[in-house]
Amino acid sequence: MSPTPPSSVRRVACIGAGVIGGGWVAHFLARGYDVTAWDPAPDAEAKLRRLVTAAWPALEQLGLAEGASPDRLTMAPTLAEAVADAEFVQESAPEKLELKRDLLAQLDAAAPPGVVIASSTSGYPMTDMQTVAATPGRLVVGHPFNPPYLIPLVEVVGGERTDRTAVEWAAEFYEAAGKSVITMDRELPGFIANRLQEALWREALHMVANGEATVEDIDTSITEGPGLRWAFMGPMLTFALAGGEGGMAHMLDHFGPSLKSPWTRLEAPELDRALRDAVVDGCDRAADGRTYAQLVAERDQGVIDVLRATGRLDGPAR
Amino acid sequence: MSPTPPSSVRRVACIGAGVIGGGWVAHFLARGYDVTAWDPAPDAEAKLRRLVTAAWPALEQLGLAEGASPDRLTMAPTLAEAVADAEFVQESAPEKLELKRDLLAQLDAAAPPGVVIASSTSGYPMTDMQTVAATPGRLVVGHPFNPPYLIPLVEVVGGERTDRTAVEWAAEFYEAAGKSVITMDRELPGFIANRLQEALWREALHMVANGEATVEDIDTSITEGPGLRWAFMGPMLTFALAGGEGGMAHMLDHFGPSLKSPWTRLEAPELDRALRDAVVDGCDRAADGRTYAQLVAERDQGVIDVLRATGRLDGPAR
Repeated sequence: MSPTPPSSVRRVACIGAGVIGGGWVAHFLARGYDVTAWDPAPDAEAKLRRLVTAAWPALEQLGLAEGASPDRLTMAPTLAEAVADAEFVQESAPEKLELKRDLLAQLDAAAPPGVVIASSTSGYPMTDMQTVAATPGRLVVGHPFNPPYLIPLVEVVGGERTDRTAVEWAAEFYEAAGKSVITMDRELPGFIANRLQEALWREALHMVANGEATVEDIDTSITEGPGLRWAFMGPMLTFALAGGEGGMAHMLDHFGPSLKSPWTRLEAPELDRALRDAVVDGCDRAADGRTYAQLVAERDQGVIDVLRATGRLDGPAR
Repeated sequence: MSPTPPSSVRRVACIGAGVIGGGWVAHFLARGYDVTAWDPAPDAEAKLRRLVTAAWPALEQLGLAEGASPDRLTMAPTLAEAVADAEFVQESAPEKLELKRDLLAQLDAAAPPGVVIASSTSGYPMTDMQTVAATPGRLVVGHPFNPPYLIPLVEVVGGERTDRTAVEWAAEFYEAAGKSVITMDRELPGFIANRLQEALWREALHMVANGEATVEDIDTSITEGPGLRWAFMGPMLTFALAGGEGGMAHMLDHFGPSLKSPWTRLEAPELDRALRDAVVDGCDRAADGRTYAQLVAERDQGVIDVLRATGRLDGPAR
């Protein structure tokens, strides 16, 4: 698909240099890429360089790639010049459908043939954004989390007119660039992580709206509770451990009826045999041969490590 | 209310010694209490001592209280003997309403007058559990998270017939015993943290049921994404930072309409002025004078610390 193999890319273009675009610039610089940025705002370059300077100490702690330097950032005067030599393009323009549609078409017209162009959109399906581009096959979604230079996750998904090879190339490129990639087979509004966040966020808003909990209660309930586990063990495997030795199968078979409890305003799906088996099998794959006792020991050590790392073991709470 | 001031309690009774009850036993032992446990299962004592032994290395890492020892656990032959001298009682029986209702009435009949009795229930309102107790005023919910010896959160709430002073006493006692307490003013099915967890869990089940994501995708989307922040900064303050310098006010005023997006199957509340202000004010209180730049720096350092603590900076991922 793209003329450059994913792991050989050296030159990246970042289009849009706000919080997300600038975060991408910082990430790619830290990973040792040459980055060309473009943003139409008059003060874009000064703001971007401030963002990179502010992020650099964090990036040094994370570990810089050989030769990585903020000096390898070039601000391009035009969109066309920004992408002229790019081997990969990351678009992070404001979240407006018309704007992204036109911008992606312009990028497609200006970028070298075959170069993959990814959009940071947090919500629009690529199918809706690629409608006016001349060669939509190379347009993918590469949805990061804020800040892109610290949070590893990128969700990669194509639109109806995206080539499968472009999706695969983007996933390989992001992995090579140090990200954790989830490749989705189909477009889903909000992708995966934002759907989960959004469900939690909406339930929280309902509670605040009804005077059932304060904003502080909600944050405390996560940081002092499940959030301590979720930094290293996801909600599915965490729930499997709540089933004790019987794991997720015991959990679903015995506590499945609580899905009908009014414990959130979100209606649960029917817990039929197929769903039950899919969840149990997934947890078995995730456990990957580790016993219940091993998983419990890992969880316990993980929570202790996270408590210590966030200053909650020695001295006052942060 | 209770004859003993919350910070002077030395003797605790734990009724029910399964995963949660046993976890409470381990926690109270590590905090230096004398613990008397009772559980009707024939192999309860052996299992409980194994649980405490397995947890002890973790508790040593967390830091033991002066004089803390597994030897300060006594197994009582009867419920009445377990609570005869107790200054606080924690009930962690199986999650069955009739059983808990009868058990709490028995505990109320056997425990010294005025001693607070807390239930670990993860779902039943105390109003429904305190119906047959002679002195229901001292019965409260003290809902922990698994494992109680590691996860700090306890949600405290009374029923309609609970004395306000019992709720306050329980909150102070748990704080003195090293827990992080949320005191709720009213009964809400699932309390707070479980409602948030449950919303996320149900959205995850919908995605698995529809083939939109695998179990592994869901766990990865949290551990490599928002979960890294939630170990030390809750979802509300995290979202406030996504609003940049403008904070939660900017976030709600500009991205509020996305609440109508189909990004989860949970319907959002109406984002009226009162809700908007409640969320903005709560985030301002949570920020407690810290600037946007300070909060960003804290978040960044927190993510780095969590990544390092969970083995994701040096060497292979855990």
